[in-house]
Amino acid sequence: MDIAIINTWLLTMEGKGVGIIRNGGIGIEGDKIIHVGKMEGFNYKSADILINGENKMVVMPGLINSHFHSMLTLCRGMVHDLPEIEYMPKGLSLFADVLKGQDFLLGTKLAVLEGLRAGTTTFAEYGIGLASLLNNVYKPFNVRVVATEMITELDFSEEKKTDDLYTFYRFLGNNAFKRANKLFKQFQNDELITCMYGPNALDMVSLDLIKEIKEEAVKRNSKIHMHVAQGGRERLQIEKRYGSSMTTVKLLKEHDLLDSTLIAAHIHDTTREERAVMVRNGVKMVGCPSSISKIDGIIPPLADFIELGGIAAIGTDEAPGTGHHDLFIEMRMASLLSKVAKRDPTVLPPWTSLNLGTLGGARVLDLENKIGSLRPSKQADLILLKLNVPHLTPIIHEPFCNLAANLVYSGKGNEVDTVIINGKIILLNGKFQEIEEEKIINQANKRAQELFPEVSELWRKSGSRMVKYHEQGYI
Amino acid sequence: MDIAIINTWLLTMEGKGVGIIRNGGIGIEGDKIIHVGKMEGFNYKSADILINGENKMVVMPGLINSHFHSMLTLCRGMVHDLPEIEYMPKGLSLFADVLKGQDFLLGTKLAVLEGLRAGTTTFAEYGIGLASLLNNVYKPFNVRVVATEMITELDFSEEKKTDDLYTFYRFLGNNAFKRANKLFKQFQNDELITCMYGPNALDMVSLDLIKEIKEEAVKRNSKIHMHVAQGGRERLQIEKRYGSSMTTVKLLKEHDLLDSTLIAAHIHDTTREERAVMVRNGVKMVGCPSSISKIDGIIPPLADFIELGGIAAIGTDEAPGTGHHDLFIEMRMASLLSKVAKRDPTVLPPWTSLNLGTLGGARVLDLENKIGSLRPSKQADLILLKLNVPHLTPIIHEPFCNLAANLVYSGKGNEVDTVIINGKIILLNGKFQEIEEEKIINQANKRAQELFPEVSELWRKSGSRMVKYHEQGYI
Repeated sequence: MDIAIINTWLLTMEGKGVGIIRNGGIGIEGDKIIHVGKMEGFNYKSADILINGENKMVVMPGLINSHFHSMLTLCRGMVHDLPEIEYMPKGLSLFADVLKGQDFLLGTKLAVLEGLRAGTTTFAEYGIGLASLLNNVYKPFNVRVVATEMITELDFSEEKKTDDLYTFYRFLGNNAFKRANKLFKQFQNDELITCMYGPNALDMVSLDLIKEIKEEAVKRNSKIHMHVAQGGRERLQIEKRYGSSMTTVKLLKEHDLLDSTLIAAHIHDTTREERAVMVRNGVKMVGCPSSISKIDGIIPPLADFIELGGIAAIGTDEAPGTGHHDLFIEMRMASLLSKVAKRDPTVLPPWTSLNLGTLGGARVLDLENKIGSLRPSKQADLILLKLNVPHLTPIIHEPFCNLAANLVYSGKGNEVDTVIINGKIILLNGKFQEIEEEKIINQANKRAQELFPEVSELWRKSGSRMVKYHEQGYI
Repeated sequence: MDIAIINTWLLTMEGKGVGIIRNGGIGIEGDKIIHVGKMEGFNYKSADILINGENKMVVMPGLINSHFHSMLTLCRGMVHDLPEIEYMPKGLSLFADVLKGQDFLLGTKLAVLEGLRAGTTTFAEYGIGLASLLNNVYKPFNVRVVATEMITELDFSEEKKTDDLYTFYRFLGNNAFKRANKLFKQFQNDELITCMYGPNALDMVSLDLIKEIKEEAVKRNSKIHMHVAQGGRERLQIEKRYGSSMTTVKLLKEHDLLDSTLIAAHIHDTTREERAVMVRNGVKMVGCPSSISKIDGIIPPLADFIELGGIAAIGTDEAPGTGHHDLFIEMRMASLLSKVAKRDPTVLPPWTSLNLGTLGGARVLDLENKIGSLRPSKQADLILLKLNVPHLTPIIHEPFCNLAANLVYSGKGNEVDTVIINGKIILLNGKFQEIEEEKIINQANKRAQELFPEVSELWRKSGSRMVKYHEQGYI
């Protein structure tokens, strides 16, 4: 045995709920879990590395961030509290435009580092030029990734008004599609990397191209991860292009795209009936509670989708929108926002939130056989959390165990002490083993402070509310 | 000078917004701030204690928890995801009933410890038998407190159905009122302690007694801190007792209780018109976003109250409800919940959340002249936060400063490095100077694990949803 973790609470996520085992142990050999159970009868003595939880820790599956754009993380805090319509043109795009190749990589490093610190072991990365991110960040960091090359037919450098019909440039889509296909080949032997197709959204990619992509996805037994029904801007384009009675979900249904190949992100601009159709057809959902509440003032319909019997997961979207990449925050937000959405405190209890962040993520990303719960023969992706912190105290086991509730309603992500991915220790006792955390943080600050003064003039000219807030002395 | 903090960002909360100063310094002498400003010209050399932020830290006013019940903190995680009507009788009260005197003190220690770790320096403590909490926790911990003895005329040990009219026992109210009056005398010379009156709510205290309390409050130039319009259970009682067209706010207005002496907690069961009346009459509000969303599935009307011109603050309520005592979480929740309440991403921006947690709290608690912002002559209640953590990176100052946004949307409370209250260092480099953190955590776990098995039978008999969830293996 390579690693044994002894005398610890286990939150296995096996069974109906969170699958708690008290005073348990975990054995790891190579990249796999080989033992999960009570300490009695656990022969751990031969382990090379022994971690003793002294019953003050809990081991749980590494968290799964099922919708994650990392490349713009240097723009954290650069845009907020704007109307949705101003968010891109008067906000994010001004800052994103001055980033160079290395800055995207630095953003990804920072975001993955942040996610790891808060217990995320799998990232469903969705971006442009994934090969570089994989080679320069994910592989050297030894992090599990579902790599989704974004495919779009829009020319983002083109000036366009919100109510103009966007022009599709098929060659742009084709190029991205080629890059996506290449990813599959290039990383097919990497055990930490799986690939998916990422046609951005129905207002940015033509139906013809999406159909081609779907054929390829089915052939490869892969999935399509797409932004679906994201709100007003998308709705307007769909109505203009396909007729005023058309919606994203109707269009997907009519074109045989609404099935188990589809992972639909966001879906807040859908009706309950449309969500029911999605669930019946095997579509899976990813919700991003902090992102959508902050950018749009809208609660993602996670509770509804789950109530309808659908399989769902959560993600942090991108730092400029959400502010952070901490799935503990997102698990709590999923529960609390769903309760207020339904005005019912019994909605989306903590075992469901924990499922969204672990096994639900694995099911959505088609990795259920590999990760998402603690079970012998699954890959050793797991995290240890300190329970002896004031905000998680006390932990009891009689008359019932309050661990799930405390992790969701009281956890911050800073309890994560140790992170193991595919059997390799990434973080130990709060210290990264190889990743140079301080250096990355310093570089990120330096670059942002160098780059963004360049944006000043354009930003001031944009006349957005943020500019006014700044000029009036609020920020 | 006793303490100088140099080379640091300052978030002063002076001026219209957050009052950022880059590369600043703070001087403290005795219990007071004597210097706030840029480093240029700051003569800090004579300071006994020098803290160098190396421009990787920010100093801001200590946070103010304006509605805080700490005594039941040992019950954290014992009740959740129940209908509001079952929350007390089938949940919290079963666990609270087995707590003994020392357990309340231990709960308070744990809660204050947790709050301090997350940057809170003032606690508006609301409970029963405050003198003991003050002598055994707040004074030895050297923490600022607004002590509010809860006054109620109900006999909580009495079996009662939700739709019965509650019986008021005046002697119970009188006894609590006497305890409250005694507090004022007993702690009048304590610079860290101010007292207020706490008639619990209009469904638990008679109008006669509240009027007497108000007279006393006015005489002492103090305030009344009351739970107002908390929802269905209160509404039912008000209608039964005072007539079916009566509401809490109407009743307060009719009896001259709706004025600047009143601090109203929660107020989610009010109309916009009622809130407008409250604001016009100088009532101040405290909202508890996590608590009310978790227990009731309701968003506190903070955004509305502020929009109407009211002065508002935030609190964490009690751990069994909320799960935690972290005002960074509450500042984010205040912003995000308000955005979804109004379906508008521009609502309750970060400078407003930061105000709720600092100066707004000071104004609500009538301590504006002493605390809530960084200004020479104010008391030295302040916190230092590490900015060189992945989730707050990058920090920029051009074209504008993203510090406020990152603290609210990305902060967790675990960035707090140093806490100073009334000029005394409580936490330094993440370590408590005198408070025995580990001991308190261990004691809390031990007591909860000893006590709560006693509850098992009653809890199972309650037949609540939580019991079913437990029996079905979800938790």
